[in-house]
Amino acid sequence: MKIAVMGFGVVGSGVANLIKKNAAVIKENTGAELEVKRILDIRDFENSEFAPLMTKNFADIENDDEIEVVVETMGGLNPAFEFVSRCLKRKKHVVSSNKELVVQKGFELLSLARENNVNFLFEASVGGGIPIIRPISRCLAGNRIDSIAGILNGTTNFIMTKMIMERTDFSSALALAQELGYAEKDPTADVEGIDTCRKICILASLVFGNQIYPEKVHTEGITKVTLEDAEFAGSFGYVIKLIAQARKLDNGKLYIIVSPALVSKGSMLAGVNDVFNACLVQGDMTGDILLYGKGAGSSATASAVVGDIIDCADNMEKRKVFGWKEEKDGMVEDYLMVPVSLFVRVKNENSAREEIEKLFPGAKILENAEELAFITAEETQKVLFEKLSASGLTVLSSIRVTTY
Amino acid sequence: MKIAVMGFGVVGSGVANLIKKNAAVIKENTGAELEVKRILDIRDFENSEFAPLMTKNFADIENDDEIEVVVETMGGLNPAFEFVSRCLKRKKHVVSSNKELVVQKGFELLSLARENNVNFLFEASVGGGIPIIRPISRCLAGNRIDSIAGILNGTTNFIMTKMIMERTDFSSALALAQELGYAEKDPTADVEGIDTCRKICILASLVFGNQIYPEKVHTEGITKVTLEDAEFAGSFGYVIKLIAQARKLDNGKLYIIVSPALVSKGSMLAGVNDVFNACLVQGDMTGDILLYGKGAGSSATASAVVGDIIDCADNMEKRKVFGWKEEKDGMVEDYLMVPVSLFVRVKNENSAREEIEKLFPGAKILENAEELAFITAEETQKVLFEKLSASGLTVLSSIRVTTY
Repeated sequence: MKIAVMGFGVVGSGVANLIKKNAAVIKENTGAELEVKRILDIRDFENSEFAPLMTKNFADIENDDEIEVVVETMGGLNPAFEFVSRCLKRKKHVVSSNKELVVQKGFELLSLARENNVNFLFEASVGGGIPIIRPISRCLAGNRIDSIAGILNGTTNFIMTKMIMERTDFSSALALAQELGYAEKDPTADVEGIDTCRKICILASLVFGNQIYPEKVHTEGITKVTLEDAEFAGSFGYVIKLIAQARKLDNGKLYIIVSPALVSKGSMLAGVNDVFNACLVQGDMTGDILLYGKGAGSSATASAVVGDIIDCADNMEKRKVFGWKEEKDGMVEDYLMVPVSLFVRVKNENSAREEIEKLFPGAKILENAEELAFITAEETQKVLFEKLSASGLTVLSSIRVTTY
Repeated sequence: MKIAVMGFGVVGSGVANLIKKNAAVIKENTGAELEVKRILDIRDFENSEFAPLMTKNFADIENDDEIEVVVETMGGLNPAFEFVSRCLKRKKHVVSSNKELVVQKGFELLSLARENNVNFLFEASVGGGIPIIRPISRCLAGNRIDSIAGILNGTTNFIMTKMIMERTDFSSALALAQELGYAEKDPTADVEGIDTCRKICILASLVFGNQIYPEKVHTEGITKVTLEDAEFAGSFGYVIKLIAQARKLDNGKLYIIVSPALVSKGSMLAGVNDVFNACLVQGDMTGDILLYGKGAGSSATASAVVGDIIDCADNMEKRKVFGWKEEKDGMVEDYLMVPVSLFVRVKNENSAREEIEKLFPGAKILENAEELAFITAEETQKVLFEKLSASGLTVLSSIRVTTY
């Protein structure tokens, strides 16, 4: 089967290399004979072994009827959206690793794929090499999935791990991540939770059936998490992680949020360290399922792309039932209306302890000379934040506590 | 699509209930409309809501051409093997949760399925509701898998967890497991590792491509693990788990073994507690992937069966490329020839420490008044066991140390 790859960056080159290296293994495992016929990139790669396949002209792919599957690893919306749309219209299957494309244009592209009876698959857009999207859409298809939560960004998890395990502060941990190539020079998309938010939106769209846009999801990054937070959280029996979660509420709406959160040390999510990712899926039949592995990197992400290509090869004639409907107004609940338990650090001033005890009866409290830290009972976030801001407490930080 | 269920026990009744409860969810997720038409069991279930579907006559399923998928949840080889064979010959797809059937007759049934262009699937035979077999055979199909290891039996993991976390001894932990319904009255198949061995054989057959029979796999259970082992292991930074592993050696043969093993506390496998299971897959492209969840139970296992049914519904006309070849002589290496590092407990007698230092230079040693515990460097198991038995040491226990 002839394949084209659009975008010869980290993931695209990984796909070309993987297909070359493991062609025999793939044929043995699945019967599929894969061959990369064309690679589209505006850059020159004269010294690459793939140089003979390179083109700068999209028409070389669009008009080549031998090419049945197109891999899109360009990233961004333009020209990825136009190119993918045109491939689908030419009845080529498309496999993408581009989370921005899926999260902004997923519904449109899935509809276009359906109209043209081809597949638009994107396992690689979430969790790198970890099988997540296919297990959710296939293996767990007999379940009503109630909740999904995860550590979906390796860069931030590396930083949090260093802060927890080696008592490094945020900026030193970030500098180390940059030095090791785990974080980009401009780390905003990672540390502000933007990347994580795109991924939870893709998963929530799949699980709950309607497109969910990042704009609707309250997102907090990890830049304000301090070493003191990590240490007090540790004393309470928790670690702090950047957690994305999407959960169906009793009122039928969804609670979706990305924020730093306290995770009990006994939880499987607490053991996810360094650049690893994990996704916790709660089905009504299976109970907790955790899928864990490398969430990024050339080979791991390429592995997910190739899994999708093989799925296309198996379903050339027949589109898989897969995807979601358009956005539904009012589907996402205002996060402030959802009850949580909150971890709070305040200055250890004169009457602080008394005030905490009055405002948050039953709260567990720890203190040192400078600070008090406590964990509240569950109340809506609106009430909790209002109580804190109306109090005389000097709040140093407040972080949600998860139940995962 | 009309389905028959053979065997109305824990899993079979779970399948019937799941399809009834989640029919709408399944249709929404996958487009498949599933209906249980017949249930075969020799017992009477007059008060069951499924009573009208019950039959004691296999011919009612075999001769009903409307039934396209047959679920086998009878367990055991007889009459499961005969019934499944006859269903496949009638060109019915078969989904089984029966690990004994798959591990003893997998190659024959897979061949029969191929000849008749139908699917024989068995996700539920390993790891209950955890997606394992499909992720390995589909999502990771672009990988050369080098190693697979796991905690594949919930009963023994529950017992080990109690011993580690609550310092319970083996027999009290077993009694508690029986009280809670996690262990059977005769717990032999669980505690002696027989159940785990079947599961690793199924996974190894899938990953390495040839049928592997349990008879070829060295299997040790957990009955000899003591509280003292768990405590010394803890002091060295390990927990003890019943670990199944299959790994390709440099000589091309496979190292497959089931035994108690020390797992570093930092490993994801160490965090798998109570009745949960997990499977660690190491691919050349993905690196470590961990799949975690409930390894048993009616609903969770039924969820895996239904995932396979949906896969059949999607591939009615076309058989999936899936399975393995016949047994290959000499494929499994003599475990004694494989190097490991060993944890050993001995009596703290006069010259014990000197002897350990002489026999195992560089071994880390801990001691209390009665005992010495140490961890050796890696040597072949043959050499390690020979050294120990030729020594003057009074060996109380020896347990392998894993590198997972």
